[in-house]
Amino acid sequence: MTLPFPFLAPENAPCPTGLLAKAQALPAPKVALVNAGSLNPLQGIREAVELGLADPILIGDIDKIKRTADDIGWDISAYRIEDAPHETAAGRAADLARSGEADSIMKGQIHTSTFLKGLLPSAAGLREKGTRCGHVFYITRAGSERPLFLTDAALNVNPSVATRKACLSHAVRLAEILGNPHAKAGILSPTEDTIPSIPNTVEAAEIAAWAKDALPNATVQGPMALDLIFSAAAAEAKNYASEVSGDADIMLAPNITSGNALFKMMVLGMGCCAGGLVMGLKVPILLTSRSQQAPARICSAALGAIVAAAA
Amino acid sequence: MTLPFPFLAPENAPCPTGLLAKAQALPAPKVALVNAGSLNPLQGIREAVELGLADPILIGDIDKIKRTADDIGWDISAYRIEDAPHETAAGRAADLARSGEADSIMKGQIHTSTFLKGLLPSAAGLREKGTRCGHVFYITRAGSERPLFLTDAALNVNPSVATRKACLSHAVRLAEILGNPHAKAGILSPTEDTIPSIPNTVEAAEIAAWAKDALPNATVQGPMALDLIFSAAAAEAKNYASEVSGDADIMLAPNITSGNALFKMMVLGMGCCAGGLVMGLKVPILLTSRSQQAPARICSAALGAIVAAAA
Repeated sequence: MTLPFPFLAPENAPCPTGLLAKAQALPAPKVALVNAGSLNPLQGIREAVELGLADPILIGDIDKIKRTADDIGWDISAYRIEDAPHETAAGRAADLARSGEADSIMKGQIHTSTFLKGLLPSAAGLREKGTRCGHVFYITRAGSERPLFLTDAALNVNPSVATRKACLSHAVRLAEILGNPHAKAGILSPTEDTIPSIPNTVEAAEIAAWAKDALPNATVQGPMALDLIFSAAAAEAKNYASEVSGDADIMLAPNITSGNALFKMMVLGMGCCAGGLVMGLKVPILLTSRSQQAPARICSAALGAIVAAAA
Repeated sequence: MTLPFPFLAPENAPCPTGLLAKAQALPAPKVALVNAGSLNPLQGIREAVELGLADPILIGDIDKIKRTADDIGWDISAYRIEDAPHETAAGRAADLARSGEADSIMKGQIHTSTFLKGLLPSAAGLREKGTRCGHVFYITRAGSERPLFLTDAALNVNPSVATRKACLSHAVRLAEILGNPHAKAGILSPTEDTIPSIPNTVEAAEIAAWAKDALPNATVQGPMALDLIFSAAAAEAKNYASEVSGDADIMLAPNITSGNALFKMMVLGMGCCAGGLVMGLKVPILLTSRSQQAPARICSAALGAIVAAAA
């Protein structure tokens, strides 16, 4: 008999009820689902529709979409369907967002890179020149409504300092939209010392200095190791004076390798719920993944509704 | 009133009893404590002595050591004390290890880099030419004896592929010493695809291919994202065939930035106990940190006793 892997949390937290209620109090946004004609994405948007988080626009092969809807017994006759081949479906969603017909865009059965290639280039018209996009996770633990915003754990692979500044700004803005105008952010590094052989420590200090002027309503500190971000006791043991320690709202990761592993450790090891979205475009972009659970999809849809309403 | 940070585990796991019993069944190793004359290190070695995990050699300023021992009411008259100034204390420990008088070396009140500078250069005589050192964490969750070996989360900042291979080998050997001759290892990356723009994915594939011949008794797979290492269900959802998924014994991190954050997330967020040691020298090296809890120190001492006995 094999024992269960002890590092895997036995269950996952639901989407926090406060967030859900806030989203449900708003009009359901028009959500353009890119490549809707497969089981997972259609089930996902159906959940969001039934919770009042989405008014769907289903983009993709119209026959496949109708067949899949039949398969899951969902009457989609009231919804807008846009017939589009796989390669141009994301571009069609960008058109709808640009013209104001869609309030957000959701990834369906399409490879993330193909999906983003249709949305991110300035030709798609969703981005102001010079703006950088970033993904922000909204992570909550079972029994708590308090989020940790983690960025970037999903989009930018090796973000430059400028991109990390943008990601931090997006997280601060997301916190503001959700009702926290004075977010505390820790810039993650393996140590609190600035050490030239660990460039992300030096860059963290640079980002923290920049934030004093650029993000005056936030408290930004770094470089900080994770123990200093999470624990006031650890900070005290190391004589590290910080308002952020043990009270962080935001954690800025130096790269996707660390960010991605940390978000997955929080979901799988700690049972957290992690919704999230790409910010920096005209509308929020909801990335979903085959291995994500329903609470994470619902959380992302709720965030999408709130951010779309704030635009 | 401030609510407690919800991402902080309310308590930490003790050192696993099976590991402790295994260490206590062996003769207590001679442990050379470098710069013993401060409260934390002396308390730490005392714990280890009282649990039968260490026969101490206290290195440092002899007056400070005696005064600190008086302060904590510990009679050290039976133990060997080596008078040495701060700068040369680590070198003195290396001498003792080389001559066989010390079975392991423990860090006291000394900066990690100063400590290691006295031990790691080949001049210290603890290292065979060409051997690379690596730190291995032995992480257990409350209520379970099953460890996850995580490397390198403490020593090598930007380990080369060769150093990562050495770290993996050290973890496999540590698993063997502890009774697991067929360890399963996942090489961590943000994705299971080998993508040139994410060099650690390509390197992970290289290390996995190398391991087939170099570590024939282990099962090594990579690149793997953390969800694929931890969860058989996630692997199934992504059609990723793996014996490692959800059954990993070892996780090889691409660099200290991700390794360090993950170990700290497991300790602070999941309440895990994380002992560990530096391998690759003539004797194991125990690094301790001011912010570490007693269970982690005891776990490290137990590992040190077991590894020293296997030398």
